[in-house]
Amino acid sequence: MTAFAESGAPGAALSISTDASSGLGQVVDVQKYNRSIHVLAMLLVGFGFLMVFVRRYGRSALTATYLLVSVSIPVYYLLGGIGAFEVPEIEIDRLILAEFGAASLLICAGAVLGRLKMSQYIVLAILFMPCYMINEWLLTGGGLLPRGGFVDTGGSILIHAFGALFGLGVAMTMTTKKELTAPIESDDTSDRFSMVGSMVLWLFWPSFCAALVAPELVPYTAVNVVLSLCGATIATYFATVFFRGRKISIADMANATLAGGVAIGSTCDHATHTGAFVIGVLAGVLSVFGFAVVQSRLEQKVKAIDTCGVMNLHGWPGLGGGIAAVFLVGGISSGTELAGIGITIAVALIAGYVTGKILSIFGRRIEPYVDSEEFVLE
Amino acid sequence: MTAFAESGAPGAALSISTDASSGLGQVVDVQKYNRSIHVLAMLLVGFGFLMVFVRRYGRSALTATYLLVSVSIPVYYLLGGIGAFEVPEIEIDRLILAEFGAASLLICAGAVLGRLKMSQYIVLAILFMPCYMINEWLLTGGGLLPRGGFVDTGGSILIHAFGALFGLGVAMTMTTKKELTAPIESDDTSDRFSMVGSMVLWLFWPSFCAALVAPELVPYTAVNVVLSLCGATIATYFATVFFRGRKISIADMANATLAGGVAIGSTCDHATHTGAFVIGVLAGVLSVFGFAVVQSRLEQKVKAIDTCGVMNLHGWPGLGGGIAAVFLVGGISSGTELAGIGITIAVALIAGYVTGKILSIFGRRIEPYVDSEEFVLE
Amino acid sequence: MTAFAESGAPGAALSISTDASSGLGQVVDVQKYNRSIHVLAMLLVGFGFLMVFVRRYGRSALTATYLLVSVSIPVYYLLGGIGAFEVPEIEIDRLILAEFGAASLLICAGAVLGRLKMSQYIVLAILFMPCYMINEWLLTGGGLLPRGGFVDTGGSILIHAFGALFGLGVAMTMTTKKELTAPIESDDTSDRFSMVGSMVLWLFWPSFCAALVAPELVPYTAVNVVLSLCGATIATYFATVFFRGRKISIADMANATLAGGVAIGSTCDHATHTGAFVIGVLAGVLSVFGFAVVQSRLEQKVKAIDTCGVMNLHGWPGLGGGIAAVFLVGGISSGTELAGIGITIAVALIAGYVTGKILSIFGRRIEPYVDSEEFVLE
Repeated sequence: MTAFAESGAPGAALSISTDASSGLGQVVDVQKYNRSIHVLAMLLVGFGFLMVFVRRYGRSALTATYLLVSVSIPVYYLLGGIGAFEVPEIEIDRLILAEFGAASLLICAGAVLGRLKMSQYIVLAILFMPCYMINEWLLTGGGLLPRGGFVDTGGSILIHAFGALFGLGVAMTMTTKKELTAPIESDDTSDRFSMVGSMVLWLFWPSFCAALVAPELVPYTAVNVVLSLCGATIATYFATVFFRGRKISIADMANATLAGGVAIGSTCDHATHTGAFVIGVLAGVLSVFGFAVVQSRLEQKVKAIDTCGVMNLHGWPGLGGGIAAVFLVGGISSGTELAGIGITIAVALIAGYVTGKILSIFGRRIEPYVDSEEFVLE
Repeated sequence: MTAFAESGAPGAALSISTDASSGLGQVVDVQKYNRSIHVLAMLLVGFGFLMVFVRRYGRSALTATYLLVSVSIPVYYLLGGIGAFEVPEIEIDRLILAEFGAASLLICAGAVLGRLKMSQYIVLAILFMPCYMINEWLLTGGGLLPRGGFVDTGGSILIHAFGALFGLGVAMTMTTKKELTAPIESDDTSDRFSMVGSMVLWLFWPSFCAALVAPELVPYTAVNVVLSLCGATIATYFATVFFRGRKISIADMANATLAGGVAIGSTCDHATHTGAFVIGVLAGVLSVFGFAVVQSRLEQKVKAIDTCGVMNLHGWPGLGGGIAAVFLVGGISSGTELAGIGITIAVALIAGYVTGKILSIFGRRIEPYVDSEEFVLE
Repeated sequence: MTAFAESGAPGAALSISTDASSGLGQVVDVQKYNRSIHVLAMLLVGFGFLMVFVRRYGRSALTATYLLVSVSIPVYYLLGGIGAFEVPEIEIDRLILAEFGAASLLICAGAVLGRLKMSQYIVLAILFMPCYMINEWLLTGGGLLPRGGFVDTGGSILIHAFGALFGLGVAMTMTTKKELTAPIESDDTSDRFSMVGSMVLWLFWPSFCAALVAPELVPYTAVNVVLSLCGATIATYFATVFFRGRKISIADMANATLAGGVAIGSTCDHATHTGAFVIGVLAGVLSVFGFAVVQSRLEQKVKAIDTCGVMNLHGWPGLGGGIAAVFLVGGISSGTELAGIGITIAVALIAGYVTGKILSIFGRRIEPYVDSEEFVLE
């Protein structure tokens, strides 16, 4: 049943020659460029300010964001020059894939935010990127799975779940006893800054998912992403009121609203509009449930603090979105899809755990979640 | 006389085939998609943060913005599936029209901001959208006026005036005695957040007006909108100093600067550059006059508080812009134009009044303009 | 040696007919329009909020930004109608060049921020624009240098160095004894707002540099700008820790990170990716050195306070970027390039100094760096 008025998924769309030597192909590349700028907005203002919710750690969160992005993109380019790692020939496609890597890294960093020294964020970026690129190669570059077999257009698995699980792995090694009980506080102003980040992520998310999609599929994909985000936002409101004792948690509103974007990633260009909305609703509920119920239990269980709750926003909804692809995308190999998910879980957790061990060598902060330890404050 | 150097309004421009099955048509749709993202930025960050000026109501204003957008867009799609409401077949055009509806709703909500419970914003969205769509159908869908007769490219009447008048209607039913005297306070930080919203609205306004304009008219339209906004901004400064006793009101600077965008809507693709600048100047003065002089008198008269002063930003300048079209657009039927304005005033005020009555059934807040009533605050 | 994997600078790219009467040409113009919106975002939210770091002067900085942009753009159009000043016929190109002028003006204003009355910012804009346009005409319009001879795609010299030196000139006349010792204070919240501005500038910088670049060169240029900004950001971190006694200055992180964008301007479409990264690193170090070491000495020397440190962000890195072009761009005339730099230094300093004298006629503020002198504050 199609609840929403749909003009139908674009089927036999005439494909545009994206040959860069044709005028039309060059114009199409400039359109991708434009979406790459939208993704940059998500990386810096989006992820950056979403993390400013920690009230005494704003300068650090934003500086860390700057460094994580500025290290990861050149590292992606550098490694792309080495035989083992395959990056696309097309200039703009490579930039977008580098930005995807940076997004995954920022998600990962959210898990340990406030508990690394600034220099350790740089080391994290250097260690994370090759692992991310290996996983990318295993799943979509012909490393383990057949090329073109693993469907994940908007990166539910490759970007979101990978980043969150890698972060969980790092947090499992790095979390100190002191940190297990240290409060993570927000205030009026930090909450509003956090909403700047949330809204910037929300509104540019269609460009994230459609970044590399063919022109004829961009509008359809965008509408799916918007409807999924709408679904998640509505669901977040009802879920937060339900799980938080009839009051709204602004942290839920800033985060779980975005779960629709995370979950629709794998199926953004295939789902029906109604399907997209439903995926969003489910992702929103799942994410609030994660923040309100699962997080504290998981943290006690694995003795790891997940500062930003990236497992709730990117982990569970990402995995859910990847699994949804098995059911929603026609002609997909469920074996390939599930294998890709399994590989990602394994690579991310193990690589994250090892990375955490290495990071520990570089020492520890004295006090978590404060700018004053590393910044000149008049 | 043409004061500004103009390359001339594009006349016999070669029209692009926007047939979605052609390569060029697909590229043109992706360009519209891009403007739809700009409009999303206005809806969330723009309107959202402009409303954060109420200092203890920031979390609520942003959550309400998220919900209003996330309910109205799917409702537009849902109703579009029902025979009575006509929505375009073209995927991206429909998204943009849905966003226009969301913009009008956000304007409406600004009138009663801080005085609805969160759940009432959701009900407001559900009740507002069909009324908005009926008015759209009456004026441009062949409902009452001849198709193509009513000129309102950037929505001065259909979006801005409709939303403001609907909001006034709601406020007329809903405003309690207590609210008539309750202060609406801002502070240093809420003022700066409000300017984030204002500037985001200002800079993306050209994309709002040109969202559905043909490619060959986009640059000309954009320049008109920019010049109108420049005119309004300059005028706002002089008017605020004049009306506020030689000091500047930051609320005027955040709001009346945008009146140029509101007023140029109807004529954005037809006015000369000089005409656009003049419209902006007049709109800016009118808007500051509204905020500084008219608002308090109107509020006493109709016993209704207009929290954000939407009548001053969207109401009067919108109506003025619609009337300007009668004089500035060649070949226009002034009868059709004025009829459209009259219908909009009637539909919006009546529908708003009835909607306010229905909303009252769902109860009232205890205290206006505070987050604490509905949010978990540590 | 090419460190980064490069697909190579686009050489014999097929050029697109940008004839506005062709469908493809119109689409290319809409793409430029889109970059013009990105530049608007930099002007308002970018420069505007970067200047909000002065904690009690936020409303003023944002209002000044609004006015500077809104006066300079129409003035550019107005003067463009007078024979002496040449502006392009193409609608969208003219808008972008007007925005470039506004950018240069905002840089200039940063030097005297907090020490002009609001009305003096308007006078500054009116006096600045013809000087800017004369310099533009001397260097690229055939006024003194041969047309097409002076290479400065992204405006290192024409926009950044000119604005900074003009501002220095103004500051040299305007700075009072009291201002030489008055503290310029920031706080937690003003620092975070400043980072909003910084990040918005960073992420849209590729569109600034590529605004008028041919479609086939846009992706290559964008990657160069991104890599240069990444280089500057990494360098800023190490330099700030080095020069600030092992702690990070958030002002350095907000400003010097952008020096990569300033410095790559002249060579953005010519440098190799590795070259772009190196230029960014050097610019970042130079800029932090300017903020941490040079600024206080220069201020004592010329008895002029540079409020935002525009010489460190736009002055030195701009000049450095212009000089880099001599070495990096093939087929360039080093004589022409150096002459252009020399002319810019002379015109900017002299015109700035004279402008400062004229501004002084309009009186002085009582207290620098406070909103309260000119704003209604409840």
